[in-house]
Amino acid sequence: MKPVVIREIPRAAPGDIDVLARLGVSTSHEAMGRTGLMKPYLRPIYPGAAIAGSAVTVLAQPGDNWMIHVAIEQIRPGDVLVVACTADNTDGMFGDLLATSLQARGGRGLVIDAGVRDVRVLTEMAFPVWSRAISAKGTVKATLGSVNVPVVCAGALVNPGDVIVADDDGVAVVPCRQAAAIAAKGAAREAGEAEKRRRLASGELGLDMYSMREGLAKAGLVYLDTLADLEREG
Amino acid sequence: MKPVVIREIPRAAPGDIDVLARLGVSTSHEAMGRTGLMKPYLRPIYPGAAIAGSAVTVLAQPGDNWMIHVAIEQIRPGDVLVVACTADNTDGMFGDLLATSLQARGGRGLVIDAGVRDVRVLTEMAFPVWSRAISAKGTVKATLGSVNVPVVCAGALVNPGDVIVADDDGVAVVPCRQAAAIAAKGAAREAGEAEKRRRLASGELGLDMYSMREGLAKAGLVYLDTLADLEREG
Amino acid sequence: MKPVVIREIPRAAPGDIDVLARLGVSTSHEAMGRTGLMKPYLRPIYPGAAIAGSAVTVLAQPGDNWMIHVAIEQIRPGDVLVVACTADNTDGMFGDLLATSLQARGGRGLVIDAGVRDVRVLTEMAFPVWSRAISAKGTVKATLGSVNVPVVCAGALVNPGDVIVADDDGVAVVPCRQAAAIAAKGAAREAGEAEKRRRLASGELGLDMYSMREGLAKAGLVYLDTLADLEREG
Amino acid sequence: MKPVVIREIPRAAPGDIDVLARLGVSTSHEAMGRTGLMKPYLRPIYPGAAIAGSAVTVLAQPGDNWMIHVAIEQIRPGDVLVVACTADNTDGMFGDLLATSLQARGGRGLVIDAGVRDVRVLTEMAFPVWSRAISAKGTVKATLGSVNVPVVCAGALVNPGDVIVADDDGVAVVPCRQAAAIAAKGAAREAGEAEKRRRLASGELGLDMYSMREGLAKAGLVYLDTLADLEREG
Amino acid sequence: MKPVVIREIPRAAPGDIDVLARLGVSTSHEAMGRTGLMKPYLRPIYPGAAIAGSAVTVLAQPGDNWMIHVAIEQIRPGDVLVVACTADNTDGMFGDLLATSLQARGGRGLVIDAGVRDVRVLTEMAFPVWSRAISAKGTVKATLGSVNVPVVCAGALVNPGDVIVADDDGVAVVPCRQAAAIAAKGAAREAGEAEKRRRLASGELGLDMYSMREGLAKAGLVYLDTLADLEREG
Amino acid sequence: MKPVVIREIPRAAPGDIDVLARLGVSTSHEAMGRTGLMKPYLRPIYPGAAIAGSAVTVLAQPGDNWMIHVAIEQIRPGDVLVVACTADNTDGMFGDLLATSLQARGGRGLVIDAGVRDVRVLTEMAFPVWSRAISAKGTVKATLGSVNVPVVCAGALVNPGDVIVADDDGVAVVPCRQAAAIAAKGAAREAGEAEKRRRLASGELGLDMYSMREGLAKAGLVYLDTLADLEREG
Repeated sequence: MKPVVIREIPRAAPGDIDVLARLGVSTSHEAMGRTGLMKPYLRPIYPGAAIAGSAVTVLAQPGDNWMIHVAIEQIRPGDVLVVACTADNTDGMFGDLLATSLQARGGRGLVIDAGVRDVRVLTEMAFPVWSRAISAKGTVKATLGSVNVPVVCAGALVNPGDVIVADDDGVAVVPCRQAAAIAAKGAAREAGEAEKRRRLASGELGLDMYSMREGLAKAGLVYLDTLADLEREG
Repeated sequence: MKPVVIREIPRAAPGDIDVLARLGVSTSHEAMGRTGLMKPYLRPIYPGAAIAGSAVTVLAQPGDNWMIHVAIEQIRPGDVLVVACTADNTDGMFGDLLATSLQARGGRGLVIDAGVRDVRVLTEMAFPVWSRAISAKGTVKATLGSVNVPVVCAGALVNPGDVIVADDDGVAVVPCRQAAAIAAKGAAREAGEAEKRRRLASGELGLDMYSMREGLAKAGLVYLDTLADLEREG
Repeated sequence: MKPVVIREIPRAAPGDIDVLARLGVSTSHEAMGRTGLMKPYLRPIYPGAAIAGSAVTVLAQPGDNWMIHVAIEQIRPGDVLVVACTADNTDGMFGDLLATSLQARGGRGLVIDAGVRDVRVLTEMAFPVWSRAISAKGTVKATLGSVNVPVVCAGALVNPGDVIVADDDGVAVVPCRQAAAIAAKGAAREAGEAEKRRRLASGELGLDMYSMREGLAKAGLVYLDTLADLEREG
Repeated sequence: MKPVVIREIPRAAPGDIDVLARLGVSTSHEAMGRTGLMKPYLRPIYPGAAIAGSAVTVLAQPGDNWMIHVAIEQIRPGDVLVVACTADNTDGMFGDLLATSLQARGGRGLVIDAGVRDVRVLTEMAFPVWSRAISAKGTVKATLGSVNVPVVCAGALVNPGDVIVADDDGVAVVPCRQAAAIAAKGAAREAGEAEKRRRLASGELGLDMYSMREGLAKAGLVYLDTLADLEREG
Repeated sequence: MKPVVIREIPRAAPGDIDVLARLGVSTSHEAMGRTGLMKPYLRPIYPGAAIAGSAVTVLAQPGDNWMIHVAIEQIRPGDVLVVACTADNTDGMFGDLLATSLQARGGRGLVIDAGVRDVRVLTEMAFPVWSRAISAKGTVKATLGSVNVPVVCAGALVNPGDVIVADDDGVAVVPCRQAAAIAAKGAAREAGEAEKRRRLASGELGLDMYSMREGLAKAGLVYLDTLADLEREG
Repeated sequence: MKPVVIREIPRAAPGDIDVLARLGVSTSHEAMGRTGLMKPYLRPIYPGAAIAGSAVTVLAQPGDNWMIHVAIEQIRPGDVLVVACTADNTDGMFGDLLATSLQARGGRGLVIDAGVRDVRVLTEMAFPVWSRAISAKGTVKATLGSVNVPVVCAGALVNPGDVIVADDDGVAVVPCRQAAAIAAKGAAREAGEAEKRRRLASGELGLDMYSMREGLAKAGLVYLDTLADLEREG
């Protein structure tokens, strides 16, 4: 692929992005019809961070962080940097100096399908990172890649400008032009959950609240008293 | 296998369960003659939790949490829910609503050979979970499984009613009818350890405290001054 | 290999070891020309620990911790125990009793290419461990190995007496006779980073600070306005 | 667990075992209601082998094959040796000498949740093995385990005397007392498949043969002409 | 995501597809500028198969092969079925009956980011499959997915109609509208390799043929006579 | 580390190398006292190859095969190329052109802790490779590494000139100066095995041939008639 940097990308409305940040990964993913998740091997470097922002994407050669420097120039306040590699790699492609620069540009955090280092300083900076590994392994600056092209990161397609939602449950990708709709759907879903939580906390069973008993019986579920009964039936 | 729910399971004496909770996983496992451990890929979602309780077991289809709803009805105060899958899976089969329901029934926690989500809320609820993954991936409710049948969970056989012991070291399974004996053996083992700890803290060597020197020499262990001596000998 | 214990090993100057501890893993690794790292699957059992010390090495049979008892006698204040296995293994070869003994001898911590247990107590003791797994699985004491021979631990060659540097970024191995030189190089590198951090924090781009623009252009990097431009070019 | 050897185990009728061998793993597994499979990381060392036989089980310490020697004495013609380990391990616990001995006793093959070596000779001997690894790593003979106790092997519970079915698709475990019933169900299933195969080969669609269209429509499946139609609908 | 089946997809010219099949995966991937590869965990079930064809895509729930039946109706002669899952899964979602049906429709093979079974029969049928696992684990038919939507399969984006190239080196995806250009570039590349092969076979070094010596020297490569020289220099 | 090429390396006597090739990996590894094995994830690209030769080593950046071109100049007839990476990587760093060149120089094969491609052609050329992956992923030529320095490859230390023994069981490393001694020990071991094989084939048990019964009894092994006896004893 020709190495390019795309300067202009779409971005969702800040209000929708904020709603998605508050809803979090699981609710956003459900609101999208259970799609858009990165694989669970991406984990936050410290617990409790929860962000959303517009994706500035990088496609990099394994072990080479040259293009991350290039990408930071394209960051605007509220963006999230998303780094994909052309092959599986765990090298520490990003550390505290890059985080300082990204934070100075208004970047909200990093999602990287590779490794990160200086995690203690990053934690002190309250700079959130979701990565596949923590590794001190240094990288070179030798081979071009691209910035703001569509990438597959941790199993999910990310188009530049898509909304990245990340928290302790992982990372979700909301397509830019669906951000408003998903935010609305997610908020509605959330509203319904408070009432469900109250009922379940009071001891009501999900079996009853969701009216599952008939479906289970129709599907053939059988209740027996003891394991011995099961063995007897064979 | 015919999908069934078994309603009555044996449970160990609460006093024995409490002793096992205090002893923890490593001591219980040693007291069983080094058996009964789940694989170490099961990890707690937050540090510090330490529980024991009677296993209510679930065998589920990957990506399907229908049977967890069924199982919660079978939970009694002090129980631990144990979820096994018919194939390796990391989907987030359990979240804060199910935890609310389980807690309302008196359940002490969850051991799941799959994924869990809403981990931030679960942590705030002090609801302990040992899982193979954290994943926002939603599940369907389409295929039956069974509740309270023997299952293999994370490499260990669990019969319904077995005592599940779980802490920062992992998860152990104590057969229900051996609970009293293992609790007693473990307590005896624990008593011996305080004295050992005191002696080791004072600088005594394990080599001497356990009288290992003779056995090592008989097995052929050789002491040399330097690596150069080793190379000279060849 | 003949099972041996080597009693005398070289040790780097305490001042150099202290400098390396302060510099940490990433800086030490860079100062060595990006070498000497253990694989990133080794992780600390709790965050925040940062140590350096002279390696006392163990080569053990999987599932057997006999030689760790032997090795503790060889520990001097300031040493770090490094345990390699003859095959991949995650058993809990080390727990709080061994840690008590190692701490009593002045050992600073443990690096083990296997499992560790009693991690809650170890955390309370402030005894740092970098391991490939946390596992309650108990071990036997049946087969000899060696102490203070060169070992490959988590992918890195460790000669007895090498300086082990370990922190939240992982574990690095500095050859004993290079400790002073690497400490000096690392300290110089560190000094330069403060000024870089200040400039990046003020909004200066790495592209400019490192004068990368010419190199990128020469390598063929192309800037386009939009993805549509890219598709048009083909 | 107390180390024991159990001398007498149940065995299924040879005729049923032969039927299961012919049906193979996938059909036997389906006939059991989709249960009883070992994990797919167990692979045959050469393609084409397909066996069934009564399980003689071994529980061994990782890296230690002492109990395999013990188990071979318990083998009778038509048996399959099943080796489980107390922890994940890939050492080469079994090679051509053990295979020679097992074959001399009438053993039909080996299923081992660990490693195997001498695979070239084993292939020449037409001695089939399903293992998790091929490894030359030698083992010790130092620690007891048990023979003919229930074990969990590659995620499946195996009771001594259960019928092990193994072919290119993996390994299944048929409980001894269900062997006749499963053989009968599997044979019936197989008979039905010939007709299905003929119809599908003639171009009939599964959608029609299995009458799936109505169920799909009811579940909400929508047919559109082009992707552009989908984007238009949103 | 709304479950849909898209009936009409673009397809590349048969002549270009045939050229890509002949060039194979590595050459096609190089001709695309080193992009478009699926991850190397996808392996063929038998060696020697080499195909190319238009992708009919499936997005399926883990453990559920309902949509594969739906997809087969959309297959035209020369197509390749590409199955992605919404979560990592190794179940045997495809076997000899589905292969019979797919072959009857003119399908050339299967690429599946999950498991496959009946591999012995598939091999006898000369039906090529690239999968992440071989597993007898049966699947349900309970949950909808989609056919002929863009999917991420084994880390690569596949749009319906893209050309799938698969051989012993893995699987590559050539975007439909680039098929002609990539086929042409690849053929040119191939032509150049014959001459290179001849020169290298005659003993000429790559260092000379590619004129690498100057670049290596400029980058700082140093030649020394012995390791002792290196140690002397430090 | 300074990038260097070392021109002169020690090599073992051709006769000893030939003996080691004949003995194979398992016997050589046993003759070294069960040391010197690479990890079992290295697998041959086709079955049946069995070689030994002097190691010419390469340390390469992940995704970069520049140094392999450099290394080939250092190959002499009978050598084996050993490629280690500074980080885990599966890219296809080596293909049929490099194999043609290596073969023209008299190289016997390749051991690479990364990926390889063109495996079908390599198989036709009878060029043996042991690799961690098969991958078409192309590599760059941008960053220096070193040739003929000590490397850790797949968990084993390899000094340039060490004898690499590789067959279907994996890869072993025999230190150059021990080659004669290990060849002699291995040959002696092999001689003893023929007699053992004959006795075992005749039905004699390992328990008797190795006189294990007394040791087992002393260690506490108990024989019981049935599982019921075990349960009765508790």
